[in-house]
This record gives sequence, C-alpha cells and structure tokens, in this order.
Amino acid sequence: MTVPPPAPARHFASDNYAGAHPEVLAAVTAANVGHAPAYGDDPWTARLQDVVAARFGPTASAFPVLNGTGANVVALQAASPRWGAVVCTEQAHVHNDENAAPERVGGLKLLAVPTTDGRLTPADLDRFAWTIGDVHRAQPCVVSLTQSTELGTVYTPAQVRAVADRAHELGMAVHVDGARLSNAAARLDVTLAELTTDVGVDVVSLGGTKNGMLLGEAVVVLDPDRVPGVDLLRKQSMQLASKARFVSAQLLALYEGDLWLRCARHANAMADRLRAGVDATGLVTTVPTQSNAVFVQMPAPVAADLRATWRFYDWDRATSTVRLMCAFDTTPDDVDAFCTALAASVRTHGAVVPAAG
Amino acid sequence: MTVPPPAPARHFASDNYAGAHPEVLAAVTAANVGHAPAYGDDPWTARLQDVVAARFGPTASAFPVLNGTGANVVALQAASPRWGAVVCTEQAHVHNDENAAPERVGGLKLLAVPTTDGRLTPADLDRFAWTIGDVHRAQPCVVSLTQSTELGTVYTPAQVRAVADRAHELGMAVHVDGARLSNAAARLDVTLAELTTDVGVDVVSLGGTKNGMLLGEAVVVLDPDRVPGVDLLRKQSMQLASKARFVSAQLLALYEGDLWLRCARHANAMADRLRAGVDATGLVTTVPTQSNAVFVQMPAPVAADLRATWRFYDWDRATSTVRLMCAFDTTPDDVDAFCTALAASVRTHGAVVPAAG
Amino acid sequence: MTVPPPAPARHFASDNYAGAHPEVLAAVTAANVGHAPAYGDDPWTARLQDVVAARFGPTASAFPVLNGTGANVVALQAASPRWGAVVCTEQAHVHNDENAAPERVGGLKLLAVPTTDGRLTPADLDRFAWTIGDVHRAQPCVVSLTQSTELGTVYTPAQVRAVADRAHELGMAVHVDGARLSNAAARLDVTLAELTTDVGVDVVSLGGTKNGMLLGEAVVVLDPDRVPGVDLLRKQSMQLASKARFVSAQLLALYEGDLWLRCARHANAMADRLRAGVDATGLVTTVPTQSNAVFVQMPAPVAADLRATWRFYDWDRATSTVRLMCAFDTTPDDVDAFCTALAASVRTHGAVVPAAG
Amino acid sequence: MTVPPPAPARHFASDNYAGAHPEVLAAVTAANVGHAPAYGDDPWTARLQDVVAARFGPTASAFPVLNGTGANVVALQAASPRWGAVVCTEQAHVHNDENAAPERVGGLKLLAVPTTDGRLTPADLDRFAWTIGDVHRAQPCVVSLTQSTELGTVYTPAQVRAVADRAHELGMAVHVDGARLSNAAARLDVTLAELTTDVGVDVVSLGGTKNGMLLGEAVVVLDPDRVPGVDLLRKQSMQLASKARFVSAQLLALYEGDLWLRCARHANAMADRLRAGVDATGLVTTVPTQSNAVFVQMPAPVAADLRATWRFYDWDRATSTVRLMCAFDTTPDDVDAFCTALAASVRTHGAVVPAAG
Repeated sequence: MTVPPPAPARHFASDNYAGAHPEVLAAVTAANVGHAPAYGDDPWTARLQDVVAARFGPTASAFPVLNGTGANVVALQAASPRWGAVVCTEQAHVHNDENAAPERVGGLKLLAVPTTDGRLTPADLDRFAWTIGDVHRAQPCVVSLTQSTELGTVYTPAQVRAVADRAHELGMAVHVDGARLSNAAARLDVTLAELTTDVGVDVVSLGGTKNGMLLGEAVVVLDPDRVPGVDLLRKQSMQLASKARFVSAQLLALYEGDLWLRCARHANAMADRLRAGVDATGLVTTVPTQSNAVFVQMPAPVAADLRATWRFYDWDRATSTVRLMCAFDTTPDDVDAFCTALAASVRTHGAVVPAAG
Repeated sequence: MTVPPPAPARHFASDNYAGAHPEVLAAVTAANVGHAPAYGDDPWTARLQDVVAARFGPTASAFPVLNGTGANVVALQAASPRWGAVVCTEQAHVHNDENAAPERVGGLKLLAVPTTDGRLTPADLDRFAWTIGDVHRAQPCVVSLTQSTELGTVYTPAQVRAVADRAHELGMAVHVDGARLSNAAARLDVTLAELTTDVGVDVVSLGGTKNGMLLGEAVVVLDPDRVPGVDLLRKQSMQLASKARFVSAQLLALYEGDLWLRCARHANAMADRLRAGVDATGLVTTVPTQSNAVFVQMPAPVAADLRATWRFYDWDRATSTVRLMCAFDTTPDDVDAFCTALAASVRTHGAVVPAAG
Repeated sequence: MTVPPPAPARHFASDNYAGAHPEVLAAVTAANVGHAPAYGDDPWTARLQDVVAARFGPTASAFPVLNGTGANVVALQAASPRWGAVVCTEQAHVHNDENAAPERVGGLKLLAVPTTDGRLTPADLDRFAWTIGDVHRAQPCVVSLTQSTELGTVYTPAQVRAVADRAHELGMAVHVDGARLSNAAARLDVTLAELTTDVGVDVVSLGGTKNGMLLGEAVVVLDPDRVPGVDLLRKQSMQLASKARFVSAQLLALYEGDLWLRCARHANAMADRLRAGVDATGLVTTVPTQSNAVFVQMPAPVAADLRATWRFYDWDRATSTVRLMCAFDTTPDDVDAFCTALAASVRTHGAVVPAAG
Repeated sequence: MTVPPPAPARHFASDNYAGAHPEVLAAVTAANVGHAPAYGDDPWTARLQDVVAARFGPTASAFPVLNGTGANVVALQAASPRWGAVVCTEQAHVHNDENAAPERVGGLKLLAVPTTDGRLTPADLDRFAWTIGDVHRAQPCVVSLTQSTELGTVYTPAQVRAVADRAHELGMAVHVDGARLSNAAARLDVTLAELTTDVGVDVVSLGGTKNGMLLGEAVVVLDPDRVPGVDLLRKQSMQLASKARFVSAQLLALYEGDLWLRCARHANAMADRLRAGVDATGLVTTVPTQSNAVFVQMPAPVAADLRATWRFYDWDRATSTVRLMCAFDTTPDDVDAFCTALAASVRTHGAVVPAAG
C-alpha cells in the first residue's frame, strides 16, 4: 500500500510530528536478527544499562517504556507511597495533557501551582509544607519538574538543586519529566548527569520520541531507595514491551553516542533561527526561547494565513498566543520559508493582537 | 554499536522472541517521511479504519495501542461499567501474566473459572448468574475469551457464538483476547469476521506483536454501543502513541493484505511439524495442537539437554509439562534440529515423567 | 469507664464538634429492637424511601452512607462515566479536605476553579467546553456544587438552575455536596426540592452528621438515568453499613419531620447573632453570613486570647482569617460569652490585621 | 414515627441481624455530652489507644473505622506496597462478599486458594513463592487470614504462627480479618494478643458490629513498620468518622472490660446448643462448630418449612448446605424453638439431601 506523505514535509506543531531519525531506524533494522528473549532480557536492554550509567552515573538504571505519559506515571507511582500526591505546575504535561492518567492509573492527586514561566521554586513547595501529616489533605510526596518546561524555558542546575534540596527536606522525592531534557542540556551545555543526578533528582522520564525515536522513552531511576518497584509498576502500568529490544535499540542509538545532543542542538538552533525571524516581524514573543519552542502572540488573520500551509498549536486563545515547535529534522529552509510567509502576512494584517478580554 | 545476536537464531520460547517480519519493517521505513499529525490524526491510521472495516465488518473501528496488556485492559474497561467484573479462565493471560494490570488500572476483578483446555462455555457464565444484582458480589459484566487459547486450543465460531449469546442474555459484553486470533482463523480456515463479529463478539484485542510486528496491537471495537469511550480510555491508560503512524503502518502491513494469514499459517504449520516430531519420540502431549503451540510432558533430564541450546518455558512443573511455541519465522530446519535433539535425549533418558506428587 | 467531657461545652470549630441531637439518639435507641435484615433490607430503610420522595420528589431514592466523603465519592462516581472528571471550586471540600479520596477511590480528576465566594457560575463550565472530546484533556462529566458553600454562602435556586442548565447542555451531570444543604434551605426559606430537584440537580450528598446525627449521610439520586449504579458503588466504596437500620433511623429522625429545619434554622440564627457580635467589635468579616459560619479577620493576639477557651479554625493564614461555625446545639449564651471575650480582646489588642505579605 | 419491629425477634441469618448490646448503646448515650474535637482527636479515641495496648500489647494502635470491608481494605492497603497482591482463601469475605472493594479501592489482586475448612497453611503460601520477583505475576505481599473463618472454624495460635512465619520468610505481611476474632478467642480460651501479636500477626481488622456494636470496627496495627500509613489511608478510603467519639465509645464499651468476651462466649454457646439440636435430628453438618455458626445440609422442604419463621442463608446450593448463625443476643429459647421446629420438619420430610449433581 502507498500512503501519500502529507505536504509540506515539516510543520511547527510538535516535535512528535517528526518521523524517526535515520540512525534510529537503522538501529531498529540492525536489531531485527533472530530471536531474543522478550520483556527486556535481551542484549540491547542489558547494554542500555551501561549507557545510562555512563550518562547519569553509576546508580542509574533504565526501564524502557512505551510513551511519555507511561514514563511519567510509572515514575511518579514509584516515587510516591500509596497515599501520596504530586506537586507540579499548572502548565505541566502531567496535569493538562495526559487526560488524568496519573489520577486514574496511580490515584495520584496533582497539586498544581501557578507559574508564569513553567518553573517551580522552593517556595512553591513551602506552600504545602503545613499540610504534611494532616490526614484531610493530599500529602505532597513527589515534586515533578518539567525540563525543558512546557513553556520552553529551562531550569539551571542550581535551580533544580534548590527545588530538590527543599523537596528532600520535606520528605519528598524529585521527578523530572525529561521529554525534552536533551534540549535543556544542549542549551545549558551541561551533561545529563549535571542536570539531574548531580543536583538531587531521584528519577527521570527520559525522552525518546520527541528527540528522534519512533516510539519509546525510559524511566531512569537515579536513587533506587527513593524510587522502588519500577520493574513491577512498569508491567502493571502496561508499559513493558514484549519485543523490548526494539525500544532499547532506539535508546542506544540516541544515547550511546551523541545523537541525543546533535538532535537537540539542531532543534534548539532552528528555534533560535525561528525566534529571530519572528522578532524581525515585530510580533511579540511571550517567553524566552531556551529550548526548541517559540511562543508568539499572533493576530488571528496572520495565524489563518500561515495555517494554509503549516500546522501549529494555539497555546492561549485569550492572548492569541501560538506555540511554534522545531524538531530534529526541521531545516533552515523550513524556518526561512515560514518566516518569509509570516513577515508577509504581518505586513498585510499588522502585528497588533487585541487586548485579552 | 554492535550487539551480537544471540545464538541460536530461533528458540521455542514464545512468538514474541521473534523479531519483526521484513514486510512490517519495510512499512515502518516507508512511513518515515516528513511530518505527520501525532496521536493518530495521520493518513496511516485513517487508512487502517478501512482495513479493519474490511476485515471485521462496517461497524468495526480500530484503536492502535502499544502492547497486549494495554489492549486487553483498555478493551475490558470500555466494555464494563465502572462497577463491573470480568469472567475469564484460570489460564487467562489477563489473570496470570499481566501482573494484576486489570485490577490495578481498571479496578476490574477477574472471576476466574477452572478449565481443562482453556475454553469457556455458556455453563461457565451460568455459575455467576445468581450473583447479578447482589451488591455484595462482584458483578460479571464482561466475558473475556482468549482465541487461540493459552493452551493452544481454538474456539470454533459456533463455540464463540454459544458463549456470546449466553453472555448477552445475562447483560454481559464479549471480549476476545486475540493476541493469536490469526492463528485460530488460519487453523479454522475462517475469516476474522466469522470468528468475531459474526458470532457476537463486541470487542477484540487484535494481535500484532506475536504475529510479526515490532510492537503494537489494536483494540477493535465491533459494537460501539456496548464498548464506548475507547479513545478516552486509551489515552488515560497510557496506550496512545504520539507517532501513531508507526504503529498503524505496521498494522496495515499485517492486515491490509494477507500477511497476517501467511504468518499465522506458517507458525501453525511449524507447530504441526513439531508436534509430529514430538509424537515420534513417545513423549506425551497434553492438549491438541490447534494453533502454534505444543504442550509436552518432558522429563527433567531431557529438558535440561534441550535447554543447552534452546529456550522454552515450563508450563506446569507439577506434571513436567513444557510449552513449545513456533513463530512466523520458525523454519522447518529449526523444528527438525530440535526434534532430532529431542529424540536423541529421549533415547538416552527415557520418556517417562514421574507422576505428579 | 468515665471519659470526662471536654470544657467548655461548645466550641466554634465545626458543626461536627457537636454531639447528636437528642431526638436522633432516641431514634437509634428505638430502633434497637430484635433482629432486622442487614445491609438496608430493613423497615427503617424502606420507610426512608418514602420520606426522601416526600422531600425531593417521586424520582428520588436514598442510599444511606457512612460519612460525607463517602457520600461525595459514591455520588460522583455514579454520575460520571469511567473516564470522567469533576468541575468544582478551589475551595471545595472534595478538593481540599478529603485527602484525594475522589482521585484515589474513583480515579476522578478534579478540575478546580478559583472563586471568591465559593460559588460556581455557568461561565466556569464554559472554560472547559473546548476540552470536551479532546482525548488529551480530562473530560468534565460532572459539576459539583457545595450548598451551602465552604464559605458559608448559598446558591439561590435560580443560580443552581443556571449552572445545571449549562451543565446539561454540555453533557455533564450535576452533583450537590449538601453536607449543609439544610442550612441553605433554611436561610432561603425554600424546600429541599426547590433547591435541588426542581432546578436540575441530579444527585445530592445529603448531610446528616453536621446537622445533628451521630454518624451517617445519604446519597439521594434524583435522576436515576444520569446517576446509575449507586447501590453497587456504595458497597464497592465501603459505604454500606451492615446494621443499616441505625443509619436510616437517624435519617428518619432528621428528615421525616422538621428536625432538619429546626436544627439548621437554629444554627443559622446563632451565626447571625455571632456575626452581629463580631461586627460590633469592628473586626472585618470577609463573606456574607448566609448559613451557619462567620469568617472574620482576627489579629493574632486576639485569636490567641480566644483560643484559651474556644477552638476554631484558621481559614486563611495569609489574611489572618478564621472560621467560626455554629451548630444545632450552640446556645445564645455560648455566642454571647464568645462575643464578650472577643470584644474585650479587641479593645486590648486592636482590630487591625496586618496586610498580607 | 414508629417502625414496627420485625417478627420473630431473632433470626439465624447473621450476627449482623442483631441490634446493639445495651451496654454499647449506653456508652453512645454517655458520650453525647457537649462538643468534642472531630476526626479522632477526642478523649474517647485517646482512651481507646490504652485499651488496645492492654489487649494486644504495647506496639498496638487502633484506628476506628466504619465497617468491616473498610477495615479490611484499609489494612490490606497499608500492609502492601503499591504493587502488591493478597493471598486469601476462596471462601474469604474479602474475595466473595465485598464486591471487589479490594480491587476497586486498593488495586489489590486477590490470589484465592481453595480450602476445605477455610484455613490457610504455610504450603498455601509456597505455591506463590516462585512468582516473587516475576514482573508478569501478581506479587504476593500480604496474607489475609480470617479468624474465626467463614466456615466457623478457628486457627489455633500455633496454626497462625506457622502461616505468619512462612509469610515473613517470603517477605509478606500478615493480616487477620477479625470480624469474629472474639469468637475464636473465646472458643480457644486465649487472649486476643495470644491469637495475634504473639504469633506474628501484623495487622488486625478488629470486629465490632458482629459482636454487639451499632456500627464500627477498628484497624489495629501491631507492627507499624510493616503496616505504615493507616491514618492517611483511612481518610482516603473514606473510613474516618467525623464524630469519631461515637465509634470509639462503642469500641471502649466492648473492649475495655470483658463485654467482647461475654458476647462471644454467649454466641458460641448458643451455636453449640444449636449444633446439638441439629445433630439430634440426624441432619449432616459439614464442618466442626468452633465459633458461632453451624453449617448443615438441609433438605429443601425442611428449609422451606423453617423459613416460614426464620431467616438463614444458603451457603452452598449444590449440596443444600445452609448456614445458621448465632448472635450475642440469641437466647436458649430461640435455639430451642428453632430445633423443635427443625426436628418436626425432618420427621415429616426426612434428613436425606440429594447427592450434588
């Protein structure tokens, strides 16, 4: 069968609109040799442990899973006792974009904190401190940071450390939703360990799909004492692949060498290029561009013009803010074509966005 | 990186020890073109709806998911009200091999019925009839049949019809765990619809991985009135792939043409060949070989001999029964080599299995 | 054994600090005759159905339960499909004071809306309208109103009607957490039906304990099509008493005659008297006194003075707001003694509360 | 209102058909004095801690709850990690009579073992030993014993010790469903501690309602290290009473003195008297009468005769076995009247029960 590819080749909707990186696909093909024990008892998954230890430190262990929601919910369950709740931001993917999977699968109440830039601070934890031990209140047992955040900002290692230290003082575990951890590391020019293990993170949802994999992520446990039972919870939470080698082989392709960093750096660079093009039009961007996303206030007629060709998401309809996301496969030509069209439309319709009612 | 393939090429442990069929892998590669909308809003997933309608009838719709446990738990949740329980066999995969995922994720109690051959009958439902409406008793709201069964037997269409009719009379929905549905259809020489839609099945967990896919299955809803909400439950249950095209493309590779049937017929034929070889040794088989598995009572020294080369699973230690499973990629040479070694070992150690204590 | 009663006799902490009304206790004693079928198949529970039909209309049926959290979580589960979420206020008891029971027991995500006075409006539902059908978003399937609210305000019948109509247009069911429904009806001088059944409410958590019972509430289903399965969910949710007559007999004592109204009117009147006394001191109250609570900004030294004798709760530490709650058994003397002490302390320490930092 | 009491005064259906013991009701009345802090922060609940320590040893702490299912599900959740399952008998109340509350509320799969007399043995645990650590299998983390059992048999302290020791060796916690623990202790003439704490039990569901209370039970934690978080889980599981003093006062009435023992001894003695009367008719009893129940094979016409006056439950329709249960308030005259009628009916219809099909 032939399914015609959609046109144009690349959108700015999400990094999960991209396909797989050719090196990832090659790794899958290479792994397709004979029989291998199922459910992770295979050489690829064994090798992944070494790779993860090299990237995150000797205490790290990797549990390949099937998607990002699965990674988050498995990690959060493991990091919390049966009665625990999770502190996160009001923008958090676990709070908004996972259709209550944490609540439904893990019984985990999310204690969502308003933020302007997607980042939690130690003070955000303090507001729950008085509830600890009060049987009427959901107990904050884990804090979940998104790195890079849903708003494309990043936490510095020091900022992560500050939250992690306060969390540990309060008896909470520290989770990082790292669907775009690589983009943050690339932007900050630090190692993955410097952004997690070294600054007190206990468990990471390590991104794969948004950075070039077909499908798959990993729960990476950094502190096994604080985060027990991941192997059992992964199976119970329906996140264990039978032919696990095909997930592990992709993770190896990404993290054994520097593909993770090349992909992330490229996506970030495309976002910078896009940001410059947007700035040149006079449109207002709403947050700093620190990873691979640009948030811009785009008048409705301009958005309509652009959407004749490209897909991208509304982020906040009240302020006419849209999100433009670059992927590992976004090209300079893609960006330039978009920016040229954007500039033309702004010239026609103007850059002014009506004040939010 | 080079991960050396394990030796020998192929075992008899499980059909999920196999890799991917080359046509499946080719379909994944072909789908890796440009950007496509995520989460199933892509041309491959759209096309899959037509294919599933062709295979299962015009009411059928497909919801690609990530693994078999996910398919089962999503399907069972959708087929049951919030307070429902599931009737299945004591051998059922959902009962034994999914680490309580139905209970943990869906809150679904399993009402497990003893069977000798893995097949439920209408009488097995009758034993729960008196409990309907008794608030103290788990309410049987779904029956789950495995086709082909965990014991390698198959339900004829008439047998499915009998159970389905009784279930519907009792107000229950009918689920088929069809991880190996293709093997049953191939053995019975019937269409997939004749084995499901036409005989009263409401929802199917349609197998992919065990019949040649890398990773992925589908929930196929046949009666949308009895089985609502699958799209929402799939997301909540963490079974929605972001780059869904790569799952759908595999399902297309399998089910658009006859690959599903070729793979299943081949695996069944290899099981027949294996069965004949086992029979020739004088070892006792415990159930008819109706799909791609052979269950044989194997003396411990014989099993130890064979395990020097091949992997296979203990099924029932009390009776020294092992399970030998053939896959789409098992070759006649694989079977013959195994049978030759088996015969030699039996000649050495004898065929007698000690009586179960 | 003699457990000495605490002194003073009555606090202003909560209406659940009170004991049982003598008529309630007499009803329990009267019900203690011989054997009665367990689990609600008794004459008291049968009689309760008539009483509830008289109070709420002919479609109403009552399911006695054990506590308020149980009433809410049973009702919300029944009013929502398996995949649903609940819209409520940020002040809601289900959101703040039930330790995530809705999430843990029902898998119900709460979509909490900020309010200033504890009341939802139709516009609060509209903000979720766009998410309906979006598989990534928690699906708003029920709205939960608290009547009277956690802030002691009340919804008029017209206000309930407006929310209920909008909810039904959006396909949502309407729940009322009526732990203090009687206080609202008493204040508004309307019947219970006028405040619920007649204005579109589908299910009520009907309060008992806070209005004079020892222990017990009821889920009252008004629209059985929208709210199925309560009998099964009550048992599963561990809210079915074996000696159910003792809960039903209390509910009869309260709702068969006018005890519910006498108790609520009295508590409301005591709150009015308390409010007048507080106003006379010059302290600032933060919301209208519409049921049996008074919210007042109380300087810390004043609060400390009063707490030497009486218990009451901090409501908002940032604004030094405390909650003073009257019960069915609060006496005018209790109120006057408190107000006298309050006035004296304010004279000493002043009425000024520091601005919130 | 006057609800006429059902006639006759007392049945043989269940010990929860009885009302409350007068001393219990008197304690409730005595506790109805003034205000008391809610949710267990009251003098009665404080005093209960001393009483429980006296009965079960210094490590014991009591958490009053609302019903037996609640006690069991709170205790089992606390005794198991998030991923654990529970070994029990096929006759267990948690398995048959709680409408899947353990699965729905706790996500706890029950691993039900067939028994003939309702008692587990160490060998019953061994059958799950091989599954420990296998991620595909539900993990046996708690064993739940019912004492006295659903079949009216009792475990001796040595039998409990044997199971508990094996459980601990396997890393499992030990729960006793003690809805009728008092009956077992009375029969065996041992203390409550000798039957639990001293023989390795970690947590008890301590019965109240079936032994004379209106309503209420307690989770008694014996090993707080193995059974953490009960206070939080009780609230989340909707088992915390607001006016907790009224539950605690009843538990004090029962367990501070010897009322628990008097009630249990009396019910047991009535069962012995009933057993003798049944034996005299020539009917066959199916298990030893070791607590307050008699199981007897009763021909259908005989059962029909008796049911004209008395209620009692079918236990096993296949064998025409019925259960006759005595309560704290069953009188010798009640028993004698029943036995007289039974003897007369057997004379008419004969004692022969048809062989089970």
